[in-house]
Amino acid sequence: MFSQTVEYALRAVVYLARHQATGPVDSQRIAEATQVPASYLAKILQDLARTDILSSKRGVGGGFQLAASPDDLSILDVVNAVDPIRRINQCPLSLPAHCETLCPMHARLDESLGQVEKTLRRSTIREMMFDPTRPTPLGEPEPSIPEASAVDSRDPPGTDGDQQPG
Amino acid sequence: MFSQTVEYALRAVVYLARHQATGPVDSQRIAEATQVPASYLAKILQDLARTDILSSKRGVGGGFQLAASPDDLSILDVVNAVDPIRRINQCPLSLPAHCETLCPMHARLDESLGQVEKTLRRSTIREMMFDPTRPTPLGEPEPSIPEASAVDSRDPPGTDGDQQPG
Repeated sequence: MFSQTVEYALRAVVYLARHQATGPVDSQRIAEATQVPASYLAKILQDLARTDILSSKRGVGGGFQLAASPDDLSILDVVNAVDPIRRINQCPLSLPAHCETLCPMHARLDESLGQVEKTLRRSTIREMMFDPTRPTPLGEPEPSIPEASAVDSRDPPGTDGDQQPG
Repeated sequence: MFSQTVEYALRAVVYLARHQATGPVDSQRIAEATQVPASYLAKILQDLARTDILSSKRGVGGGFQLAASPDDLSILDVVNAVDPIRRINQCPLSLPAHCETLCPMHARLDESLGQVEKTLRRSTIREMMFDPTRPTPLGEPEPSIPEASAVDSRDPPGTDGDQQPG
């Protein structure tokens, strides 16, 4: 149910979150690390850079960088930036009698979409960067993880993330 | 997140569930009632007839008919018959270290897919046929609903549906 675009965007964002301390990373290097076709990824990175999720810098030493704090950024933010979850707000058959209240079928489908949104909204990118009970994202060796304190000392991992930075 | 194929298949199944007492319905009539392009629907109906969900009858007076009880048939059954929910059982990057345990990102995406499965598994087609608090599926007038007792007197609406007929 998650598109290839969503999968690739999340890989890129998690990669950039783990390398946030090293400055901009060029698109080709991200493509290699995330196993995404370079031209496909370039389009996704441009889309993400049009939002508050990534920033981009042109020229020598340029590339893409996480613009948001991984504590404030959710999986849902990334999903909605590239391939939004389309809730069923209106009757897909445009039936006038279903304008204000969906039929049982569309109501139930929409309920399940709402549950997905809820789960992904409460999942921060920080949580995706490291979990001691799970293997390292993208198969990277552990030493490549920037220390959380170097990324954002105001919001160490495990804190709520709702705290506003200093 | 639900494909057009899923949407169309569910419309057709709910329509046939509501007309179960009238015998086989031809594909063209279902297409008109469900507002689905006839050629697209024909393919979906064939897919559903290859499962235990629909039966088909050729020739004059032929067409498609619900083969399962609407109490035993879930939305998930229909979804999985035409465009299955693909849980993330293996690392999409084929990383050897992620074979047995997914990384946090894929684990969370899979968790949300599991929630969708759970919601749709507990949603019977009977529940989609009629809900007094919601408009009639497909905009049909209420009188067209076959009485539940005429469809399957062994499993009236509101029963658990886990009871085996007979």
